[in-house]
Amino acid sequence: MKIAIAQLNFHIGNFEGNLSKMLAAVEEAKSQSADIVCFAELATVGYPPRDFLEFEDFIELAEATVDKLAEAAQGIAIVLGSPTKNPVLEGKDHYNAAYFLADGKIQHVQYKTLLPTYDIFDEYRYFEMATEWNVVEYKGKRIALTVCEDIWNIGNENPLYTISPMDELMPQQPDFILNVSASPFSYVQAQARHQVVLANVERYGIPLFYVNHCGAQTEIIFDGGSLVASPDGKIFDEMPYFEECVRTYDLEEVQQGGREQRQPREKMQLIHDALVTGIRDYFGKLGFGRAILGLSGGIDSALVAVLAARALGPANVRLVLMPSQFSSAHSVTDARKLAENLGCPYDIIPIEDIYNTYMQALRPHFWATEFNIAEENLQSRARGNLLMALSNKFGNILLNTSNKSEVAVGYGTLYGDMCGGLSVIGDLYKTEVFELCRYINREEEIIPDNIITKPPSAELKPDQLDTDSLPSYDDLDEILFQYIERRLSPQDIIERGYDEKLVRRILRLVNINEFKRHQMAPVLRVSEKAFGMGRRMPIVGKYLA
Amino acid sequence: MKIAIAQLNFHIGNFEGNLSKMLAAVEEAKSQSADIVCFAELATVGYPPRDFLEFEDFIELAEATVDKLAEAAQGIAIVLGSPTKNPVLEGKDHYNAAYFLADGKIQHVQYKTLLPTYDIFDEYRYFEMATEWNVVEYKGKRIALTVCEDIWNIGNENPLYTISPMDELMPQQPDFILNVSASPFSYVQAQARHQVVLANVERYGIPLFYVNHCGAQTEIIFDGGSLVASPDGKIFDEMPYFEECVRTYDLEEVQQGGREQRQPREKMQLIHDALVTGIRDYFGKLGFGRAILGLSGGIDSALVAVLAARALGPANVRLVLMPSQFSSAHSVTDARKLAENLGCPYDIIPIEDIYNTYMQALRPHFWATEFNIAEENLQSRARGNLLMALSNKFGNILLNTSNKSEVAVGYGTLYGDMCGGLSVIGDLYKTEVFELCRYINREEEIIPDNIITKPPSAELKPDQLDTDSLPSYDDLDEILFQYIERRLSPQDIIERGYDEKLVRRILRLVNINEFKRHQMAPVLRVSEKAFGMGRRMPIVGKYLA
Repeated sequence: MKIAIAQLNFHIGNFEGNLSKMLAAVEEAKSQSADIVCFAELATVGYPPRDFLEFEDFIELAEATVDKLAEAAQGIAIVLGSPTKNPVLEGKDHYNAAYFLADGKIQHVQYKTLLPTYDIFDEYRYFEMATEWNVVEYKGKRIALTVCEDIWNIGNENPLYTISPMDELMPQQPDFILNVSASPFSYVQAQARHQVVLANVERYGIPLFYVNHCGAQTEIIFDGGSLVASPDGKIFDEMPYFEECVRTYDLEEVQQGGREQRQPREKMQLIHDALVTGIRDYFGKLGFGRAILGLSGGIDSALVAVLAARALGPANVRLVLMPSQFSSAHSVTDARKLAENLGCPYDIIPIEDIYNTYMQALRPHFWATEFNIAEENLQSRARGNLLMALSNKFGNILLNTSNKSEVAVGYGTLYGDMCGGLSVIGDLYKTEVFELCRYINREEEIIPDNIITKPPSAELKPDQLDTDSLPSYDDLDEILFQYIERRLSPQDIIERGYDEKLVRRILRLVNINEFKRHQMAPVLRVSEKAFGMGRRMPIVGKYLA
Repeated sequence: MKIAIAQLNFHIGNFEGNLSKMLAAVEEAKSQSADIVCFAELATVGYPPRDFLEFEDFIELAEATVDKLAEAAQGIAIVLGSPTKNPVLEGKDHYNAAYFLADGKIQHVQYKTLLPTYDIFDEYRYFEMATEWNVVEYKGKRIALTVCEDIWNIGNENPLYTISPMDELMPQQPDFILNVSASPFSYVQAQARHQVVLANVERYGIPLFYVNHCGAQTEIIFDGGSLVASPDGKIFDEMPYFEECVRTYDLEEVQQGGREQRQPREKMQLIHDALVTGIRDYFGKLGFGRAILGLSGGIDSALVAVLAARALGPANVRLVLMPSQFSSAHSVTDARKLAENLGCPYDIIPIEDIYNTYMQALRPHFWATEFNIAEENLQSRARGNLLMALSNKFGNILLNTSNKSEVAVGYGTLYGDMCGGLSVIGDLYKTEVFELCRYINREEEIIPDNIITKPPSAELKPDQLDTDSLPSYDDLDEILFQYIERRLSPQDIIERGYDEKLVRRILRLVNINEFKRHQMAPVLRVSEKAFGMGRRMPIVGKYLA
């Protein structure tokens, strides 16, 4: 038996687009002589469809898509994920289902059992849990059909869950496991996936075919990396990261094993490719082609410019240099040098006149006050306005250039440098920004060295440096990581050797700045805990604030 | 036996503040000769604590608060809700629990069973479900202790759930039901609560004491309205809306019934009081006292000004009039009249020079383009910047003045009139804005009549009217309501008599403007479906877009 994995980039709610992609992949799988072609979890609707699932009409469109695929299941079986109505009144209205289509009909539907509700996941908001498990028989083989999380409770040892669907299915003696997944990228996720897939083949002793999505849905990036594992505990194949691929495997060969094929995996390369994918799909799926961003001469906007140029093509990325009276000379020369290295169009629009006109209008009100954050923010917001005016006039989406460290402590101006439709590097700590820039420059100087080596500064007042108001980024990022990713208490972080006053000050900054993050663009997620839908914090909360 | 209900306004994560409020209420209940005093669900931590619950430290602080209350439970029993650790490894880490404290000790802990995950709720993200139910015995009475949703599956007829905790408890012959709740306000919620509480006493035939929160937590407003219901199917008492209250009831009197005491309930009064509460608590809990907002001469900002003046006192609400060359003469006179009626300080800052300076800077780039949305938005953003500059200089929080109709269809400028730390009327359709203004003016002309009667206009280009680009608000709001609150399909809305093209255009506008709402301030929730945490939509989604 030959099994094709179709690792595709779906588009949420784009039923026609998703259907035609799948139909093309069915043809491709047939040309590869496949007996079965497998698509990912919720393939009809894309992942995560979120509250679209509350519209009955949306579910009916998904069911109509499954019906059309069933018609196409001639001479080949089709496996895919789709939401489906719960046929009984009791329980939630829908199931997250895996369909088995063959001979022009729906042959089998297996509901998902384990519904994740942590981090970015909300599945129990929408779906009822399965209470029945049956293998599918096809061409003399018995298939254990499972949906994503259903293989993540091996031997019922995952404390989150109380049922192990594979343990339920094993008495029916399946020949192999098919798993339709939607497993979002983080820079440690591929490793976690390998471990789980291998733990399954080790426990159950049968091959496992694991189908993932690729491509990005707003902030959620899917890296693909679909897996075939053989009973000898080896990764028989790992499909490419971040690209579509239809590939067919011979079940007997997989059963025999003895082969190990993994993708190369290096943190900075993964993050680089993920962010390029995230930008490309955000624009592509919204039907936009051109970006704009402010280039300050600093490292954050430099990195975003490189990533955008790679995602959209340099001609489609408009860079705008907006110096003020507080900008250093090297800011403009460094930024211009980068624009030229990349081949992006750029403009220089000084903001001094605009700033002065604001100050003129505010003079009667600011009378006898000191220069402070109000004047600093005005500069940042004047830049935001200029960028948005160009964006509105010419249809370029503004890219946000804030990094995770500054977003965490609120070191950014709401409606100023926090503007933008998409936050490209809002899940990269400043130290990771440096690391990724060095990765980009590993062979040639794309980002001018001076941008990487000079001390970071917002340049909103004379001789300002980030370290005037923040600790070193090495310390800051470590404290933030322990608090955000690890969710350690202040006491636990202090015990790791950090100054108590510093730790309490940083954690307080994180918590009192939730209101800023609430109004921020979606952040491309590359870590295990990004700001956004996976981290839900009260704004008026008093905890550590 | 005498039972005190303590309906209090907690503050999320403010353990000390919440504890001292509860200790004061314990004393008050003692002075009312109560045998038991009852606080609401998750009283130690406030509701909803959201991902603070993922911090072990946070849970330990909650448990320490319960321990301190247990010490105070001398001569009186204390009932309250608090998160607690799951003592076994299997299942989620925590339970949402009701505690019964007496004689200086924790006497009983009842976990919550039914964990809502719809709309604003995420309880299954954090909590494991109860699987055991036991009455508490105290002073010869048997008490059925339940948490919020646990009484919302009467006779197991709620299709969302498969267990009815009260059905499980009834064989133990409880004398009355105690329910600790966190039931957020919407303008129909008090009615829903009455129905559920009465359905419980009708089915079980014993008195029910229902304790709610009051006060606001960012966008979620609790109206209080705690209830006592007697077995004869009457509301024995309904506590006041939107205010703290400690009140003691004699169980025997409630048992006898024959009394009916409900709060007056009128949609506009409820919404008015909810929004005033929402503003007051947002400022109070963040430690701010003063607001600022732009007063355009239109009805939305007028309404927000009135509500803010009532919440914070007129002297603490700074109004800023920012006319442009496109502003009509009446805009300034109407706005000034309102400011004078309210007694709020106001400033006039024309934006023409700022706008012209921007246009000067953009001239080389905008060359040969037509005046369009870019120039319109620039005006709105210049105003946003001025307001934020004053906010930053003087520490006033900017209030957003967008209404639900315009937020729905994207008729607003991101980083312009969409600025602000809190959206006050973002859950009121424009037709409800008119209705609330007429309610405010029911006895005297507080809002100048001309503001209410003139046709709505953004005044961003000459002779502009909202109806140039939108249908009448009566039609728009009805279509939006059917789509947003009722989640009807386009076909179902068209069948209600609306033009197909119009319906499809409106629904498309709603869906393609998700990116703007994503970056909006939290919206005070007054309806059953507000924008924000209760409505989670994809941005790159293609559904109806």
